[in-house]
Amino acid sequence: MLNLFRFKAVQRVAFEDIDYYKVVNNSKYFFYFERARVEYLRKLDFISTRDKGLDKFDVAVVENYCSYRKPAYFDDLLDIHTRISYLKSSSLQFQYIIVRSGDGEKISCGYTNLVRVAFPSLKPRPLDGSFVEKVTEFENENLGKSPGIPDIT
Amino acid sequence: MLNLFRFKAVQRVAFEDIDYYKVVNNSKYFFYFERARVEYLRKLDFISTRDKGLDKFDVAVVENYCSYRKPAYFDDLLDIHTRISYLKSSSLQFQYIIVRSGDGEKISCGYTNLVRVAFPSLKPRPLDGSFVEKVTEFENENLGKSPGIPDIT
Amino acid sequence: MLNLFRFKAVQRVAFEDIDYYKVVNNSKYFFYFERARVEYLRKLDFISTRDKGLDKFDVAVVENYCSYRKPAYFDDLLDIHTRISYLKSSSLQFQYIIVRSGDGEKISCGYTNLVRVAFPSLKPRPLDGSFVEKVTEFENENLGKSPGIPDIT
Amino acid sequence: MLNLFRFKAVQRVAFEDIDYYKVVNNSKYFFYFERARVEYLRKLDFISTRDKGLDKFDVAVVENYCSYRKPAYFDDLLDIHTRISYLKSSSLQFQYIIVRSGDGEKISCGYTNLVRVAFPSLKPRPLDGSFVEKVTEFENENLGKSPGIPDIT
Repeated sequence: MLNLFRFKAVQRVAFEDIDYYKVVNNSKYFFYFERARVEYLRKLDFISTRDKGLDKFDVAVVENYCSYRKPAYFDDLLDIHTRISYLKSSSLQFQYIIVRSGDGEKISCGYTNLVRVAFPSLKPRPLDGSFVEKVTEFENENLGKSPGIPDIT
Repeated sequence: MLNLFRFKAVQRVAFEDIDYYKVVNNSKYFFYFERARVEYLRKLDFISTRDKGLDKFDVAVVENYCSYRKPAYFDDLLDIHTRISYLKSSSLQFQYIIVRSGDGEKISCGYTNLVRVAFPSLKPRPLDGSFVEKVTEFENENLGKSPGIPDIT
Repeated sequence: MLNLFRFKAVQRVAFEDIDYYKVVNNSKYFFYFERARVEYLRKLDFISTRDKGLDKFDVAVVENYCSYRKPAYFDDLLDIHTRISYLKSSSLQFQYIIVRSGDGEKISCGYTNLVRVAFPSLKPRPLDGSFVEKVTEFENENLGKSPGIPDIT
Repeated sequence: MLNLFRFKAVQRVAFEDIDYYKVVNNSKYFFYFERARVEYLRKLDFISTRDKGLDKFDVAVVENYCSYRKPAYFDDLLDIHTRISYLKSSSLQFQYIIVRSGDGEKISCGYTNLVRVAFPSLKPRPLDGSFVEKVTEFENENLGKSPGIPDIT
C-alpha cells in the first residue's frame, strides 16, 4: 500500500508529545496528520504568504480516523507518508501511514475527510480549480485507489 | 441514540482550543474524548490516588474516530455524552456524542477502541474483573448495542 | 500574599497535561493561567456571546512568568488564585498562585503582563472604561499592591 | 546580544500553534523553548537512545519567562537562538531569542532555569560531570555572561 504514497512529511517526536506511559499520546497523531497535510499543500505550492492565507484550501474537517499499531517514543523520527486518495466535487480525503525511520516499524495509519465550505453558511462549495488540477497531476493514476483505512498489514 | 448514554462529562471550550478559523480545532476533540473517558472512569471509581495510578485501567488506544457536524466556539459549554458500548475479553469501546449545552446542537460524535495490554510486551491481557463488573452493572442492558460510529442524524 | 487574591479558578489536571516524568509539563501552566484569566473575566461579565467575542478585552500578552515549586500530578484538583495586580492606562497585570486542593501544597506562581492594542498597527490604546471600572470595584484596595512575582515563601 | 548565541534551532509555526487572533498563542512559545533545549542537547550528544532516556539531563524546570515583541504567523519559519547562559553546581539557565527567518524581525525572548534533582525526593544534586564539560567547551568564554532576560532592544 505504501507504493501509492508519493509524498512524506518528516516529524520528530517532541517532549510535549509524550504522555504518562512514555509514548506518543493518541491524540497527538491528529496534529501529526494536520502538519503532514500542510507539508503536502506546501509541496504543491498551496501554502502562500500570510496575506493570502489559506484562501484556496479553506476546507473543514468532517471525519478523522487513526489506527494505532506500535508505540512511538521520545525523539523518534517519523515518516508520515501522505496522499490525497480521492477528490470529489467539493470534498477530498487525505490518507497517512506513519513509519518510524529508525527501524521501519509501522506505527499508525489513518485518514481525514475534508469538505470545502462557504463561510459562514458552511454549505459545501466546489474545490478550487487550480487545486484539483495540481493534485490530479501529482497523484495521477493513484487517485481514487484504496480510500478509507489504509491497509498496512 | 442519545438514550443509550447514561453518563455525560461537561467541557468548557478553552481559548487554547480555538484555531485560525475561530472554531475548536479538529484534533482537540480527541482530548475532549480522553477527558470524558477519565470522568467516566472516576464516576465508576477507577481513578484512584496518584500512588495507585492508572493500574486497573492500563489500556492502550487502538482506534480513534471522530465525525464533525457543527463547529464549536470559544467558551461554549459542551455535554460529552459518553458510554462504553461493548466489553470483550481484553478490549472495549467508548462512544461519544458531543452536544452544545446552549442550543442543543449536535457538534460531533466518535468512538475509541481500547485494549488492555501487558507491558512491555504489549500483548493483550484480560480486562480487570472488578472493572468488567462495575461497567456491566452501570451500562446494563445497553452493553453491546449500536457499537461503532454513533448515529446522530 | 494569598489574602490579596479575591478570585480562584479550579482546574483538574488532565491526562494530556502529564509528561514523561508523570508530572504536569512546565508549559501547561501557561494554559492554566490563560484559562484562569478567562474565568476571572467571566466572573466580571466580560466574556460575552460568541458574536460580541472578546471585543472589550482585546489585549496582547507581552510578558509571561512562572515559578515552579512542587510537581502536580494526574487528576490533581488545583486552585488557581488569580488577581489583577495593577491597571495602567493601556496595560495590566494578572498574578496567579496555584495551590493543590488536596493537601494545600503551593505548586507554582506567576504573572502575565498584557497591553491593549489596536489592530493591525499593534499600537497601545487605552483600556476599556467599563472594564477599568469593574476591575477597580472588584480588586479595590488591593489594586497596585505587590505586583510582579508573587511571594509564596 | 545575538552574538553570544552559538546554536539555533529552527521551528516552523504549525497550524495548531495559531489562536483566535491568527497569531502564535503566547503559551506555545514555551513549547518552542522546550524543543530548542532538546535540539541543543542533541547537538551536544545528550539525547541518547530511548533506553538510556533522559538520564544525564534529568532536570526540573524551576522558572520560565517569555517576553513577546512581535506576533508570529502561520507557517513562519523561526530561528530559536539558544544558549546556556550559566552553569552552577546543580542548576543552569537556558536563554532564547526568537527571530523570524523571513524578515529578521525579533519575535520574542526568554529564559528557563533548571535544576538537577534526585527522584523522588526532588532534592538538588550536582550536574553530570560530562554534561558540564561539554557545555563549558561549547559555550566557552560566553558562559556566565548576560544571564536573565535577554536584551534584544
